[in-house]
Amino acid sequence: IGTQSTVILAVMDAACIKSCPPLLDYKTEKYVLTRNRRVGAFHRLLHLGIFCYTIGWVLVVKKGYQEIDSNPRFSVITKLKGVSVTKDFRELEEKLWDVADFVKPSQGENVLFLVTNFIATPGQVQSVCPESPLVLDGRCGEDLDCSAAEAVVNGNGIKTGKCIRLNATHSTCEIYGWCPVENGSLMSKPLLNEAENFTLFIKHAVHFGKFNFFRANTLETSSETYFKSCRYDPIHTPYCPVFRIQDIIRKVGHSFEELSILGGVVAVHIEWKCDLDHSVALCKPRYHFRLQEKKNNFRTATYYWNKERQEYRDLLKLYGIRFDISVTGEARRFGVIPTAVSFGTACAFLGAATFLCDLILLYLDEKANFYWDCKYEEVAPQQ
Amino acid sequence: IGTQSTVILAVMDAACIKSCPPLLDYKTEKYVLTRNRRVGAFHRLLHLGIFCYTIGWVLVVKKGYQEIDSNPRFSVITKLKGVSVTKDFRELEEKLWDVADFVKPSQGENVLFLVTNFIATPGQVQSVCPESPLVLDGRCGEDLDCSAAEAVVNGNGIKTGKCIRLNATHSTCEIYGWCPVENGSLMSKPLLNEAENFTLFIKHAVHFGKFNFFRANTLETSSETYFKSCRYDPIHTPYCPVFRIQDIIRKVGHSFEELSILGGVVAVHIEWKCDLDHSVALCKPRYHFRLQEKKNNFRTATYYWNKERQEYRDLLKLYGIRFDISVTGEARRFGVIPTAVSFGTACAFLGAATFLCDLILLYLDEKANFYWDCKYEEVAPQQ
Amino acid sequence: IGTQSTVILAVMDAACIKSCPPLLDYKTEKYVLTRNRRVGAFHRLLHLGIFCYTIGWVLVVKKGYQEIDSNPRFSVITKLKGVSVTKDFRELEEKLWDVADFVKPSQGENVLFLVTNFIATPGQVQSVCPESPLVLDGRCGEDLDCSAAEAVVNGNGIKTGKCIRLNATHSTCEIYGWCPVENGSLMSKPLLNEAENFTLFIKHAVHFGKFNFFRANTLETSSETYFKSCRYDPIHTPYCPVFRIQDIIRKVGHSFEELSILGGVVAVHIEWKCDLDHSVALCKPRYHFRLQEKKNNFRTATYYWNKERQEYRDLLKLYGIRFDISVTGEARRFGVIPTAVSFGTACAFLGAATFLCDLILLYLDEKANFYWDCKYEEVAPQQ
Repeated sequence: IGTQSTVILAVMDAACIKSCPPLLDYKTEKYVLTRNRRVGAFHRLLHLGIFCYTIGWVLVVKKGYQEIDSNPRFSVITKLKGVSVTKDFRELEEKLWDVADFVKPSQGENVLFLVTNFIATPGQVQSVCPESPLVLDGRCGEDLDCSAAEAVVNGNGIKTGKCIRLNATHSTCEIYGWCPVENGSLMSKPLLNEAENFTLFIKHAVHFGKFNFFRANTLETSSETYFKSCRYDPIHTPYCPVFRIQDIIRKVGHSFEELSILGGVVAVHIEWKCDLDHSVALCKPRYHFRLQEKKNNFRTATYYWNKERQEYRDLLKLYGIRFDISVTGEARRFGVIPTAVSFGTACAFLGAATFLCDLILLYLDEKANFYWDCKYEEVAPQQ
Repeated sequence: IGTQSTVILAVMDAACIKSCPPLLDYKTEKYVLTRNRRVGAFHRLLHLGIFCYTIGWVLVVKKGYQEIDSNPRFSVITKLKGVSVTKDFRELEEKLWDVADFVKPSQGENVLFLVTNFIATPGQVQSVCPESPLVLDGRCGEDLDCSAAEAVVNGNGIKTGKCIRLNATHSTCEIYGWCPVENGSLMSKPLLNEAENFTLFIKHAVHFGKFNFFRANTLETSSETYFKSCRYDPIHTPYCPVFRIQDIIRKVGHSFEELSILGGVVAVHIEWKCDLDHSVALCKPRYHFRLQEKKNNFRTATYYWNKERQEYRDLLKLYGIRFDISVTGEARRFGVIPTAVSFGTACAFLGAATFLCDLILLYLDEKANFYWDCKYEEVAPQQ
Repeated sequence: IGTQSTVILAVMDAACIKSCPPLLDYKTEKYVLTRNRRVGAFHRLLHLGIFCYTIGWVLVVKKGYQEIDSNPRFSVITKLKGVSVTKDFRELEEKLWDVADFVKPSQGENVLFLVTNFIATPGQVQSVCPESPLVLDGRCGEDLDCSAAEAVVNGNGIKTGKCIRLNATHSTCEIYGWCPVENGSLMSKPLLNEAENFTLFIKHAVHFGKFNFFRANTLETSSETYFKSCRYDPIHTPYCPVFRIQDIIRKVGHSFEELSILGGVVAVHIEWKCDLDHSVALCKPRYHFRLQEKKNNFRTATYYWNKERQEYRDLLKLYGIRFDISVTGEARRFGVIPTAVSFGTACAFLGAATFLCDLILLYLDEKANFYWDCKYEEVAPQQ
């Protein structure tokens, strides 16, 4: 209480000696002071427990004095870079892959697909041809096995009713569909088998709306040439989000060579934990990688119309590694209400502690009756 | 209090008979015990109310003793399967559609588009041609109606200033743009009208970061062949996320035939509610379907350069059903702080109940003055 | 207390005059009433503070009586419309762009890319050719500068070991890769430089699962023709989410002409703040725009197989503006538990206020000893 208020109170005191409004009377609970060491010690122990819980657990460990925003909005821009080095590049049969070939979609969003292998079936047209012998339901011995107008289960078309001999051992139903059917087998040596120099650049920004706090995973000052040469390291270069593909694949416990044959799905999770009461410099993204699927492929086709307006297509079955980038974040800052609730809870528990001790004193203690009579003063208005 | 602490307290008692630190005195509030049944009953009623609210509502119904994580991160992998069976497949005019034809984009992300109908305009080049008579602003009576260098509103190009007679009834402005303009009308019988055997496989996983709890909607043990034959059923096969397209469309209250002509947008919402204090087996995804739009189409084009390096394109206006898959989740687990806040609030309310009863006793009761004098013991230090 | 309960209590009173269960005794704390104005005033000040904090801050400002759902799920449907008007459209060298040309992907999801400029390299095949002189690592003086079988850093292929003279001043290594290499320079006048009439239609809906509250940014009653002519205005047409591209670019502080040369990334953030205790009509979306990147491009290619089954491709390096649309929301509604916690905290603080005043009265006041003796009534059981 400052000097000013002291003066005000002194004036008030002088002004109303006896006729003062009872509003300023101070009422304090009357206590019974017992020298009961057992209950007293227990009471102090409870106080200590509440104190430790509130200070230690709620405030220090759980930071219960802070408001939390765990719904940041974010945007992700990705860029895959690299040229696939095939060892015997002089044989023209081998192919060189660049970014336009192996990244789909190429816009650089938060899901991207790195093509590592494919089966191409160019020049398909709608006509009749034998089903692939790889499709179980397409195999046949005679025409009766191929009921006309029925779709081949997990196959490529509709049976016409004929059974066609492919070679000495295989016969398959003739189908109506895109012909010829996909028949190429996957190379066990993937087309894109050298990814040492491939890099994935993940630029993103988070915005915590509650605190209007904005943060990016790249330093504003960084020049473009910096990102061309740097590689991510959590300690030395936390603001260089450039990852070598091989490092990512190794972190999820596989080799690139292994995954590149049949493809896979790798979840890239970026986590922000920002304590805005501390230095903002400590608020750095953490990157987690996890293999979600050991197989991944999809089919895509490009369509053409020739001069007779007949449609044909080039079918591609692409195998590859899909990167699913997700960002989550949690920002915390001192807030009045969470602090109040934390302390309010502690206050309420202090009351509960007294209640508990009273129970012991009044019901379990040897002299319970004596304490009862001391605590409760029976009064009765005169009837 | 265990035997050990009893011993400690006995020693303390003996050591400090009168000179003991007052820290271990136990102070308990002195109460005035009144036989006022009305206020007493009201007091007990309030206690009962607080008790019921805390146990019944806060703890049982709202599970206020649990911490909540409602921000799981998740990843979705989708796969559409099927071959469109056209009834008169022997007429080569009809077309057979497979996955590469009717799914766009084909990567299997959380938004996918099932093409059901289209208008193709192959071989467009940049030149001049009459605007489509379907565009209102393109119609004209004479050259003056077509102001040169002005774009046709909602049209396909820029007017050159000429009006061209198409037939006896229609004249349209000549435009500069991709020619010829799109003019095909939509078939009222959609191209993809049989989707009985189409299935949508939605594989996804959720990860609740707060509890480090991971869950997928497919059983780890399930073989790939299992997913080829199973269909989703909430009771019998909750871990087989394979849906027939027709079933989904029927659930949103339409027929596939109806939606497939002009397309539509179907929101697929997957909801997880996991109580980690109970058996994890009860934590299953629930699927909700909702029709968001009754029309859906977009235009896409493929570009070519012929030998004279002239560019031309094939334009496709695709109609279809877009599936928007979203995942939300909420996991709950016992937490110390929410429990403490729940009980702390209850304790605080017990104090408030006493305050309320005091108000009645001291201001509303017939003998209020008597109780006032009993409760408040006036003291004044000697001046 | 109603008349019924009064009757019940009167009966209870009559039934048990003295032998009544002590359960219905009302016990009230005994208080010591002091005329200490200083502490009394301080006590009232604390009460006033708690009252103001609870009513003013917690309930009015922070609306602590409400439950919050800040995890809505949402779906976004976008549509870009417009025809690029090039001024001298009569020169056939210039190109007219329409939606199928400049929007990628074209499905209308929450990320869309508006192509504004490009470099085309048609007809690339896998063979040997000199590297582009723009790639630093590809320049050479003699064959020794080009180590065979090594990839050109940030280049287009693998060195064959030869150094090739391009012209009087430049020599580059011969590479194996897609040939010829991309060499076109960007036009400083972008291809898509007139976007006055381009519009972005952003249709979306949010669903707050906790309150089962659904809301869209378009009026259900609006006809399709309404959206063809309306433009967004926060006051007059809040439910017309049609934005002119130029307006968006201007809002982020740039001109369309400037951004269209090298592209850029614009974050479109839609924010819902809904107070369900008030009129739902007040719950409108707010749109925020922010420039995230000043450069944006990606490469894409289309593949062909000629009759000799040789593969070739048309490479496109596309520059453009990417729109990243994100939706966040927060809905609030009266909830029993947050209200209880707010009031419970206030109750607990009232107790803490008394404790604080007691400290002053018993330790800091001039007559502290006197008050101590009044407050604490020492009792001791007879040994």
